[in-house]
Amino acid sequence: MTGAAGCAGKPTLAVVGATGAVGTVMLGILSERADIWGEIRLIASARSAGRKLTVRGEQVEVVALAEEAFEGVDVAMFDVPDEVSARWAPIAASRGAVVVDNSGAFRMDPEVPLVVPEVNPHAARMRPRGIIANPNCTTLSMIVAMGALHAEFGLTELVVSSYQAASGAGKAGVDALREQLGKVAGSDLGSQPGDVRGAIGDSGPFPGPLALNVVPFAGSLQEDGWTSEELKVRNETRKILGLPGLPIAVTCVRVPVITGHSLAVHARFEREVTVSAAHEILATAPGVVLCDDPAQGEFPTPADVVGTDPTWVGRVRRALDDPCALELFVCGDNLRKGAALNTAQIAEVVAAERAAL
Amino acid sequence: MTGAAGCAGKPTLAVVGATGAVGTVMLGILSERADIWGEIRLIASARSAGRKLTVRGEQVEVVALAEEAFEGVDVAMFDVPDEVSARWAPIAASRGAVVVDNSGAFRMDPEVPLVVPEVNPHAARMRPRGIIANPNCTTLSMIVAMGALHAEFGLTELVVSSYQAASGAGKAGVDALREQLGKVAGSDLGSQPGDVRGAIGDSGPFPGPLALNVVPFAGSLQEDGWTSEELKVRNETRKILGLPGLPIAVTCVRVPVITGHSLAVHARFEREVTVSAAHEILATAPGVVLCDDPAQGEFPTPADVVGTDPTWVGRVRRALDDPCALELFVCGDNLRKGAALNTAQIAEVVAAERAAL
Repeated sequence: MTGAAGCAGKPTLAVVGATGAVGTVMLGILSERADIWGEIRLIASARSAGRKLTVRGEQVEVVALAEEAFEGVDVAMFDVPDEVSARWAPIAASRGAVVVDNSGAFRMDPEVPLVVPEVNPHAARMRPRGIIANPNCTTLSMIVAMGALHAEFGLTELVVSSYQAASGAGKAGVDALREQLGKVAGSDLGSQPGDVRGAIGDSGPFPGPLALNVVPFAGSLQEDGWTSEELKVRNETRKILGLPGLPIAVTCVRVPVITGHSLAVHARFEREVTVSAAHEILATAPGVVLCDDPAQGEFPTPADVVGTDPTWVGRVRRALDDPCALELFVCGDNLRKGAALNTAQIAEVVAAERAAL
Repeated sequence: MTGAAGCAGKPTLAVVGATGAVGTVMLGILSERADIWGEIRLIASARSAGRKLTVRGEQVEVVALAEEAFEGVDVAMFDVPDEVSARWAPIAASRGAVVVDNSGAFRMDPEVPLVVPEVNPHAARMRPRGIIANPNCTTLSMIVAMGALHAEFGLTELVVSSYQAASGAGKAGVDALREQLGKVAGSDLGSQPGDVRGAIGDSGPFPGPLALNVVPFAGSLQEDGWTSEELKVRNETRKILGLPGLPIAVTCVRVPVITGHSLAVHARFEREVTVSAAHEILATAPGVVLCDDPAQGEFPTPADVVGTDPTWVGRVRRALDDPCALELFVCGDNLRKGAALNTAQIAEVVAAERAAL
């Protein structure tokens, strides 16, 4: 099977974690986008080996994760938990594959670039470990829009509040939300203290009931009361934009939405901004759709943008007290641009590099 | 009926809009709080006249809104639409009642104080029109906590994102959300663009589907893309805190919660702040409950605080880039402190004044 591609032909792609939530979306995305790959090899845990999955309309058998599985692979995408990436990405890289990793294992490694192709594609070339990291889904849900505005106006500060979907916590998150909704629908719950919590009981992967509620905590607890999710948005945004000192304050909140992360953003810039100039930038920026005509009911919502590729931006307002600041509401699909799509785009950047040699 | 009270005895209270959503909560609150009132007269539209409602354990017959209905009334609470207050509050005042108005009709009138008893009780005394205004529910859901922090550290800037409940749009909002939940529960909706919108159809009082979604628009569209709700939070916060120039940027978002408004707040102060100093202030401030131990799963959520009186505060963090700024997550019951309770508290301040004469 590995003979079908190589340096002379189309490159070989490995999808590690092909049977997971992001892997499943990835196979769909690989089937929709320009077909630049030779072999696409599907890799998963030994438990899933032998299963057949469809990609590009063909049945492909899943092979078990092992050193030999990377034989002849040009680009290896990893959609697996942090600890699996931490162990296996360097192995794949040592076998000659360029790894595009969607876990949190390498994002803040100074020798691993963190890439969003619309924002910092050049960074993908500097990869001394042979690994390129894909940002966290919450960062990705806003960064394309913020990168476009930064290029024009120069960001000096961000204050961000998130409205994050259940699928950010994986399939377990979606299952838990659907089960909780079944328990509260058709009831008169939500008007008495704790009645929702009482009816729902175990809240699954969330630290509180999510149906008829919002939960101001995502990820794990870190120093000084911050969550891992909040620090990721902060640190990754700084790294992607090349602004290591950018002030960023983030509050991450889970909301009862299946898929689609939203963020309310207060962004301050070096220069004066106007809504019309921001509109012009956002309307023409690659990967961004401007959806901002509230008089006609046009603003992005997660239920409308789920399943789509771009970052959607609306409710653009200039701060009333600061001619250099904008308020925006941004939505994106946390499983597509927030995970699988951006990984695929990075892999395509690497493939284009090789093709240009 | 009017002879039961008067200047010498307990004051007479009128509740205008007694049959509405806030009015209903008000009758409950009046039955729970210290019994300082003589007669409690229930007033509503002619359509509701003759109905009997229970307050303080007694059946009281609703009388129709008319000039004579204010005869002998010392304090008149108005829980009615803006246009009804605009017309009838001055009439009640002209008959000698002190009006406490929960509509938006008078809040920004320079001759009408906007009062939160824990924050600016003294302002209630200066009421040249005989009218005192009760703030908007979103402002009220955070203002007690922010007032306490402001008194200590001196606020210099606020950036606020809201997570507002359906009941902020009245009974129609609650009914619409419950109906929408019935349509999406037990489905696999929420993973395809527009599938939730398609299943829900008419979204009731909201400008988009609210079940399995968030809607970044509340109120009506005003100049430069701002909503009425966002401008209310800004203008009312400035007026209550006596900071007419305070920079405030607000984004209001509706979430699928029955009752309980939440806000993510970025607050900058004149002085350096610490989490421990903020905790001490919030733990002892009247009307505030500190709920901030995320290691033990303790943070406020709307489903837990609904039906309670205080403003709940958690997720207190000092901004990592600014020793003068705090991030907080604040929750309150938008029908209680956000509406009926604060109105009752203002009425009690007025009654105490009269008692002191």
